[in-house]
Amino acid sequence: MRGFKNTLKPVNILSSEAEEKVHVATLRMLREHGVVFEDARALDLFRAAGQKVVADAQRVHLDPEFLMATIRKAPSQFTIRARDPKNDVVIGGDNLVFAPVSGPPFVMDRERGRREGTVKDQHDLIRLAETIEVMHHGCPEVACKDLPVETRHLDMLYDQIRLSSKGMIGDAWSTVRAVDHIAMMAILFGGREAIADAPVLLGIINSNSPLVYDAPMAEGLIEYAAAGQVNIITPFIMAGATSPVTLAAAIAQQNAESLAAVALAQLVRPGAPCIYGSFLTGLEMRTGAPSFGRPEAALGILGSAQMARRYKLPCRGGGVLTNSKIPDHQAGQEKVMMLWPLILGGVNYVLQSAGWSDGGLTASFEQMVMDAEMLEMIGRFFAGVPVDDESLALDVIGKVGAGGHFLAQEHTRRHFKTEFYFPAMADTQPYETWVKMGSRDAYERATERWKKLLASYVEPTLDEATDEALRDFIARRKRDIEATL
Amino acid sequence: MRGFKNTLKPVNILSSEAEEKVHVATLRMLREHGVVFEDARALDLFRAAGQKVVADAQRVHLDPEFLMATIRKAPSQFTIRARDPKNDVVIGGDNLVFAPVSGPPFVMDRERGRREGTVKDQHDLIRLAETIEVMHHGCPEVACKDLPVETRHLDMLYDQIRLSSKGMIGDAWSTVRAVDHIAMMAILFGGREAIADAPVLLGIINSNSPLVYDAPMAEGLIEYAAAGQVNIITPFIMAGATSPVTLAAAIAQQNAESLAAVALAQLVRPGAPCIYGSFLTGLEMRTGAPSFGRPEAALGILGSAQMARRYKLPCRGGGVLTNSKIPDHQAGQEKVMMLWPLILGGVNYVLQSAGWSDGGLTASFEQMVMDAEMLEMIGRFFAGVPVDDESLALDVIGKVGAGGHFLAQEHTRRHFKTEFYFPAMADTQPYETWVKMGSRDAYERATERWKKLLASYVEPTLDEATDEALRDFIARRKRDIEATL
Repeated sequence: MRGFKNTLKPVNILSSEAEEKVHVATLRMLREHGVVFEDARALDLFRAAGQKVVADAQRVHLDPEFLMATIRKAPSQFTIRARDPKNDVVIGGDNLVFAPVSGPPFVMDRERGRREGTVKDQHDLIRLAETIEVMHHGCPEVACKDLPVETRHLDMLYDQIRLSSKGMIGDAWSTVRAVDHIAMMAILFGGREAIADAPVLLGIINSNSPLVYDAPMAEGLIEYAAAGQVNIITPFIMAGATSPVTLAAAIAQQNAESLAAVALAQLVRPGAPCIYGSFLTGLEMRTGAPSFGRPEAALGILGSAQMARRYKLPCRGGGVLTNSKIPDHQAGQEKVMMLWPLILGGVNYVLQSAGWSDGGLTASFEQMVMDAEMLEMIGRFFAGVPVDDESLALDVIGKVGAGGHFLAQEHTRRHFKTEFYFPAMADTQPYETWVKMGSRDAYERATERWKKLLASYVEPTLDEATDEALRDFIARRKRDIEATL
Repeated sequence: MRGFKNTLKPVNILSSEAEEKVHVATLRMLREHGVVFEDARALDLFRAAGQKVVADAQRVHLDPEFLMATIRKAPSQFTIRARDPKNDVVIGGDNLVFAPVSGPPFVMDRERGRREGTVKDQHDLIRLAETIEVMHHGCPEVACKDLPVETRHLDMLYDQIRLSSKGMIGDAWSTVRAVDHIAMMAILFGGREAIADAPVLLGIINSNSPLVYDAPMAEGLIEYAAAGQVNIITPFIMAGATSPVTLAAAIAQQNAESLAAVALAQLVRPGAPCIYGSFLTGLEMRTGAPSFGRPEAALGILGSAQMARRYKLPCRGGGVLTNSKIPDHQAGQEKVMMLWPLILGGVNYVLQSAGWSDGGLTASFEQMVMDAEMLEMIGRFFAGVPVDDESLALDVIGKVGAGGHFLAQEHTRRHFKTEFYFPAMADTQPYETWVKMGSRDAYERATERWKKLLASYVEPTLDEATDEALRDFIARRKRDIEATL
C-alpha cells in the first residue's frame, strides 16, 4: 500500500456558519440556475430521476433533497488497485496520495531546453517517476504529438502499463478513449467484472465553468462510473474569469459543479467512486493567466477541502503548482505555498504534485525531482514528535552535562537516521566549498539527480500472455479507428 | 500599530499527554541537572530566591514550584514602542510580527557578489527594510567590520535610529553594550523612567546549549530586564550537537534553558517582558551545518510554540531560513517550509524573516525583497474567506449564466483588488513573452525590485535636539571607551 497517513487535523478555514452559507448557496445555485450537460445520456438520467430538465438549454435543475440523497451514495473511502499490490492506494479518510504531472504539451530539462513532448520524453518521465517512492500513483503524461491523435491514447496507456508498476490514470475525455482504457485495464486485471467493484483506473473530469459539462466529459464520466472506475471531478475555477472573483462564490460554484457531477455518477451506478476535485485559482489580472502559489489559492484549497469533508467525499487538491518557467526561487516558493494548504486541508489526492512547470504547459525533469524531495519531507513531517523516555533522553543530557556535545553519543547514532530527513539535493556546504564545487544552484544539482535516478530504473515485468492480449487489443482497435478516418 | 493578526488556530503537534511529558522532563532537568550561569549577579539572584546554587560549577538547581510561580510573572502580551507610533508592535496573543535578518558577517547582491559587511551596506539594508511594509519591527544588521569593534554598537544603533522609523532591536551581548543601548533609547524616548514600563528595545539572548548562559549573555539579560526592556531568550539548539538528536529531548532542553532565563529576568524585575525563543534545527550530519527548511525544523517550531503557549509566554520562531548560498529553488523551498509552521504554530515574533541567506552567514538584498513578498502573501491569507451575500454573488452567477465569463462584471471590478494578492515580482507571462523579455529568473527580477525600493526610500525626520543629545552621548562614550583601550 502506497501513500501517506496525514497526521494533522484538517484546518477549517470557514466558520461553521460560513460553511453552511456556502452549502445553502450551492443548493440554490443548482436549483435556480441549474447545470448544463451537453449530453443526451446525462440529461436522460437526470430526467428519469425526476429532475427538471430544460431540454433546449440542456440544463438540469436539481432538487436539494434529491441531490443530498444521491451524493450520499458515493463512498467516502476506497482503494485503487495497481498491478503491483504494493502500489495500491487508499483514497479518502486521512490518506494522502501524490501523483505526478499530467497533461503538458511541452517537456523541458536544463540541458536540452523546452520542446514539444515526444514519446521518448514520455517514456523517460514514466521511468523517472517509477524510481521515485513518493510518486504514489499514476504516471507522468505529456501530449505526445509524434503519435497520431486518434490512437494516441492506446499507445500511451500501454506504455504506462509496460513501464510502470504504479496505479493508472486513464483518459476520460470522450466515449472512445474511456471505453478503450477501461477495456485495457480489464485485460490487465482479468476482466470487466473483476474491476467493477475494485477500481483500477482513475479518470479526470473537468467542467467548462461556469456550470457546463460538455459531451465528451459527460460521456467519459458515465463510462467510468458504469465500469465502477474512479472519476475525479475537477471544475476549473479561475476566480474572476470562470467564476465570480470572490472566493466564497468560487468555492460555492465549484461545489455546485462538483456535486452535480457526483450525482450523475451515482445515477449511472450507485456507489460509483468519485473524488471531489478542486483546481481553484485566481486570475492574474495583468496577464490573464491563472495564478498559482498565491494566498487566494491557499484559501481556495482549504475552503474546497472543507466542503468535500462536509459531504464525506474524498478530495483532490489541484497540485504543487507554479507559474514560473524554470525551477527558480519563484517555483520553489509558489510550490511550497501550495503544498502546505494541501496538507492542512486534509486533501486526499494530489495530482500534478511533481514535475509541473510554467502554469502546466511544461513537464520538467528537474522540477520532478525537486518536487519529490519536498513531498518526501512531508512524509517525515507526518511522523511527528514521538515523546517517551527514550526520546526525552534525560539520562543522555545528564551524561553529556552542561556545555557538552552530543554528536558522539550512542543515542545520537541510534536515532539520527529516523529523526532527520536526508535530502538528496539540498546544499549545506560551507560557502567556500560550494564555490570550489562550481557554485552550482539547485537547478543544476537537480539535473544530476534525475539522470542518476533515471539510470537506476528497472522495468517491471509484465506477464507475457497479458502483454500479448493488450497488444492484440491495441492492434485491433487501431485497425478499427484507422478504418473510420 | 504594525503587524498581522494570525487568524488560524494554533496547531498542537504534541498530544496533551506528550506535552505534559515534555513539561515534566523539563522540570526534572532543571531540578536534577540544573543550568549554568557563568555570572555572579545571576547566581546571587537565584541564591537570594532560595534556589540551590553549586558555586564551583556556577550551576543553579531550580525547584519546580519556584520556577512555575516565577515565570508566571512574565506578561503574556505587551507592546514595543517605536519612535513613530504607527510602528508600535504588539507581542503575544494572536499577533504576528516580522523582523529582518540580523547578524550576518557577509552581504551579497547578484551584481556585486558576496563581500564582508560594511557600514554602507548596513545603511542600504536599513533603508531597504524601511520601504517594506511587512518589515514590522527592527532593522537589518550586518557585522560592520569597517567600524572599531569596541564602539561599533554605538554607531550601529544610532544609524538605525536615524535611518528607520521602526522599533529597535538592541545589542544585549555584554553589560557595556546593553547599558549603552538602553541609555540611547532612553534619550530617544524621554528618559529611563519613560521606557521602564513601556518597552522600546528588544535584546536577543542566546544560551550556550546545553544548559549554559555565559557572563555577557547573563549580564545583558539582567540589564535589559532591569530597564524593563524585552529579552528574547533563544537557546541555539542543533539537535544531535547541542542537544540530544531526538526532537522530544531538543524541545525539552530548549524549554529548560528558556524557562530558566525567563525566571532570571523575573527575579531582576517582576513582570519584565520576555519572549520565549526558539531556533531549533537539526544537525546536517554530512557537513556539520545546522539544517534549515527540513521537516525536523518544522516540527521543532510547532513543538516549541506549543510549549510557549502552555506557559502563556509570547513566542519567537527562528526565522524564514535557508542553507542555500543564493536565492535559488532551494532557498524558496526551504524558506516556505519554515514559514508555514511559524504561522501554524502561532509564533508571535519572527526574527530573520527576510534577507537571511547561507545559513545566516549572509544578508542578501535580493533575498530580502523575495522574502518580503512571501510574508505579504501571508497577510492576505489571514483575511480568510469572507462569506456573505455580496461575496457569494448568486445574482452575478445568474446574470452571467452557464458558460459565461466574469471578467467584465462590475462585481469583479469591485472586489479583485482585495480578493487577490498582487505580487511585484512573480512572473505569469506567456513563455514566449518571458523569453523575449530576456528569460529572467526570479533572482534577476529581485535585483530590479530592491533597487527600485531603495530608490524610493525617504529618511524619516529625527527631532534635532534628540539627535544632538544622541550624538553627544555617543561622542562621550567613545572617548570613555577609547581611553580604556
